[in-house]
Amino acid sequence: MSAERVARGDARRDLMDIAIDCFARYGFQATSIDRIAKAAGLTKGALYYHFKDKEALLFAAVTKRLSQFERRVVTDLAAVPDPATALREVARVCLDHATKSNHRRMIVTLMVEAIDTNPRLAAEFRAMMHRFRMFLKRIVQRGQDSGQFRADIAAGVAAEVFTGAIMGAEIQYYQDPRTFNLAATITAFIEQFINWLSAPAPGSPRPLRAHRAAEQRSRRKSS
Amino acid sequence: MSAERVARGDARRDLMDIAIDCFARYGFQATSIDRIAKAAGLTKGALYYHFKDKEALLFAAVTKRLSQFERRVVTDLAAVPDPATALREVARVCLDHATKSNHRRMIVTLMVEAIDTNPRLAAEFRAMMHRFRMFLKRIVQRGQDSGQFRADIAAGVAAEVFTGAIMGAEIQYYQDPRTFNLAATITAFIEQFINWLSAPAPGSPRPLRAHRAAEQRSRRKSS
Repeated sequence: MSAERVARGDARRDLMDIAIDCFARYGFQATSIDRIAKAAGLTKGALYYHFKDKEALLFAAVTKRLSQFERRVVTDLAAVPDPATALREVARVCLDHATKSNHRRMIVTLMVEAIDTNPRLAAEFRAMMHRFRMFLKRIVQRGQDSGQFRADIAAGVAAEVFTGAIMGAEIQYYQDPRTFNLAATITAFIEQFINWLSAPAPGSPRPLRAHRAAEQRSRRKSS
Repeated sequence: MSAERVARGDARRDLMDIAIDCFARYGFQATSIDRIAKAAGLTKGALYYHFKDKEALLFAAVTKRLSQFERRVVTDLAAVPDPATALREVARVCLDHATKSNHRRMIVTLMVEAIDTNPRLAAEFRAMMHRFRMFLKRIVQRGQDSGQFRADIAAGVAAEVFTGAIMGAEIQYYQDPRTFNLAATITAFIEQFINWLSAPAPGSPRPLRAHRAAEQRSRRKSS
């Protein structure tokens, strides 16, 4: 790769970081190409060399941020053999991201907005959430295989509960950071979730079997 | 009240129902005043008689819908003395709304969008979510007072976990209705949540005391 190519690659990466910062600070609508160019110390022409429009820049920036998050979670957790510890660790990383910068807030609110307004971004987010749930499902299954977690719980449904509880808590925190206690909420959830997974199967496991049957029906439907 | 006044009141109510239907179907941006007027069989002039602009109509329609939802939940649950049954019933009503029409989807996605784009609507949603959590908190406290629920859990944090888990599950369902199993997820969550509330306090209740202390700190901070 030529030196010029490397420099172009670096400029593209820097631009994405600067753009996502602008989007997070001012919102997508209120962020002009001019503003991003100015923040990056570039001309508008130089910016258009890398991205055809603001939407392309948003798409690249969000895709990059999602893959960074996924890499971080997967890498961090490869070293954690205990499934309960791994689940606590995922929750800790989410809490960390939610409270330490406004980038995650931007990503999560954008994900919801995209559902009805941006099919391309919506598809990207849908696939990412699907991968994230599969990742969590495998952690739960690992605990089930080792006998640490109950075998009568549908691992896929457990993953859906986990992602929902974290995301729903985050959104309430973004909506009301002054009074919503995100750390306490996530800590309480993760404790109840692991208790639930770890508890011995109750005398009458019917409702839990019903979840698993429902999940299998839904899996058949979607395949 | 004169007959004309009554008719005006009725027209206003009908208009809000028609408008929320248009917003839910086409999104706020893509819904013009023209489209709503046509759907209502009115002239644009007649519509402007009731609402100064599209934003005012959205605000009135959303406020109306939120208060309907709150009234329904509060009324339905006044007749439910058992706190565990009441919590199950709230979850059932949410699931019902989420799957039977696209209005709730519109309200939930709008709530997230409003966080960064519409301060007036955001304040309305923030107050509504706060009231909803207080309502749930009182149900949890009722169970604690009667000895049915553990006393060492912070009722406010329990309410935060509940609202988060339901909303986060819903959002994933709106994002991916084909593969996300909303009914199974909400059923699994409510079972684990009630198990958690009902379980006898563990030998070492330290982490739970920590939640309550964190909640009290946050309450002091925000008062």
